[in-house]
Amino acid sequence: MTNKTFVFGHKNPDTDSIVSAIAMANLRNKLGETSECFRLGNINKETTFALKTFNFDAPKLLEKVNENDTVIMVDTNEFSQTADGIENAHIKMIVDHHRVKLETSEPLYYIAEPVGCTSTILYKLYKQNDVTIEPQMAGLMLSAIISDTLLFKSPTCTEEDKITAQKLAEIANVDINTYGLDLLKAGTDLSDYTAEQVINIDSKLFEKDGKKFKIAQINTADVNDVFKNQAYFEAAIDKEIKNDNLDLYVFAATDILNANSKIITMGTKSNVVEKAFGVSLDHNTATLENVVSRKKQILPNILDNLD
Amino acid sequence: MTNKTFVFGHKNPDTDSIVSAIAMANLRNKLGETSECFRLGNINKETTFALKTFNFDAPKLLEKVNENDTVIMVDTNEFSQTADGIENAHIKMIVDHHRVKLETSEPLYYIAEPVGCTSTILYKLYKQNDVTIEPQMAGLMLSAIISDTLLFKSPTCTEEDKITAQKLAEIANVDINTYGLDLLKAGTDLSDYTAEQVINIDSKLFEKDGKKFKIAQINTADVNDVFKNQAYFEAAIDKEIKNDNLDLYVFAATDILNANSKIITMGTKSNVVEKAFGVSLDHNTATLENVVSRKKQILPNILDNLD
Repeated sequence: MTNKTFVFGHKNPDTDSIVSAIAMANLRNKLGETSECFRLGNINKETTFALKTFNFDAPKLLEKVNENDTVIMVDTNEFSQTADGIENAHIKMIVDHHRVKLETSEPLYYIAEPVGCTSTILYKLYKQNDVTIEPQMAGLMLSAIISDTLLFKSPTCTEEDKITAQKLAEIANVDINTYGLDLLKAGTDLSDYTAEQVINIDSKLFEKDGKKFKIAQINTADVNDVFKNQAYFEAAIDKEIKNDNLDLYVFAATDILNANSKIITMGTKSNVVEKAFGVSLDHNTATLENVVSRKKQILPNILDNLD
Repeated sequence: MTNKTFVFGHKNPDTDSIVSAIAMANLRNKLGETSECFRLGNINKETTFALKTFNFDAPKLLEKVNENDTVIMVDTNEFSQTADGIENAHIKMIVDHHRVKLETSEPLYYIAEPVGCTSTILYKLYKQNDVTIEPQMAGLMLSAIISDTLLFKSPTCTEEDKITAQKLAEIANVDINTYGLDLLKAGTDLSDYTAEQVINIDSKLFEKDGKKFKIAQINTADVNDVFKNQAYFEAAIDKEIKNDNLDLYVFAATDILNANSKIITMGTKSNVVEKAFGVSLDHNTATLENVVSRKKQILPNILDNLD
């Protein structure tokens, strides 16, 4: 039994999930509570770049939470995406910016806003609690906003994300566009990943009415280069479908320069994707024009068309 | 198609559900949006007393919401407890203080805190948005806090509820204890209700793993007087169980002076209540010592013991 609060985001952590956990644990500690941030998986290259730039260590890996552990969830509220054992933990607080899919038996603090990034909400929580955001922390939180909004190009990006990013950039003393492109490009380097690792860089599991599907997403500055390896990705996806008993798998390679996504879709429910986006699959692939957001574009369209 | 936002709470509305809808619609309107508050059922006597004291009309009755209506839910997040048609509405915001049981396809504003009353959270939202709380509105919001916390006796009551009530009482210029007892007593007058009406004054439907149960609650200053009519209540409960296909029904008469509850329990899962509270049912009844809160005491214990 420990009184420490465990703070973490989602599995296959992206930059926001790591940064929000760090920023939230720091805030709780500044407020006199004992919190520790954790990661629920490997740190990707984009996040590594951000941590290195602003001099932070990666949080420790958390395998699972124990019964009655007190936890704060950031950047997710779905049990299927977060720490194993979460069903029996005491969830004290959730700060998130995704759709809600949650069932608890007790009331809790729940703060969600339809903004582009959890760190945008955390910025407000620091202000409300009169806790100063140090320059290094500001740089880290700025990185999360740049990452989640694809440097403000994503339809998930709100005015508030832009204004918050501007304020954080001033505190951190960095040029948003220069740093932003460097950060995003750091995340597109797939050179030393296997196909299996690539599809798991940022993959999320969803469930609806007994149907299970995964949507994986990577950023790239060269879509054709990614699709040279299509056969390897298909083999890796096929393996995941069988292992996890999935009805559908969507792997999206999002072009950070042209703001669209080329996808590979497999599984018995592949036709859902054709219906959802009005496209015809050609050798399991299609290009989704203007689609860059899993949360606001890919997921809701799939949910609405899943029968 | 209307641009108006529909603001409402739960079915079988209690004072907080009506007051929070009124206070939230007023806040949104003050912020320049077009909102209207509604009730999802009859106004009970306690709420009638509060509305009359502070000169408010009851909100209009809402039968259901239409596809794509924009709604704000207060004092609940569970679809089974709120307006019919909610599944296809656009939920813009939720302000609540209950456990979470929700699935949406899009992100939304979600503000929940584990406090005793939604109006306590609304007080903060007024402050954050620099909107003045008028004396009549303050009296109404104070009524909701008194009602939900049973004049601060409920284990759901937090320090924040007490402090907020004090501030609202000052704005409204009322004596909390005098007004509070008058308000609670107004709610205990069951003289012109049928048994069927009494069990539906404040009844909520819950579902877990395919099992359906209702927990109804009334306040009383004379438990024995209520239980004179036990046979009539049992007949009414039996009818509800059959009509709604319920596995369990718990009717709690909560003693506002002695802070305990005498219950009638029926349904095939009645044994869950014996297990949950360590009591033996005697002619379907038991007294639950120190139990006054459905949310914090009755519901979680039933959820934890439902097999």
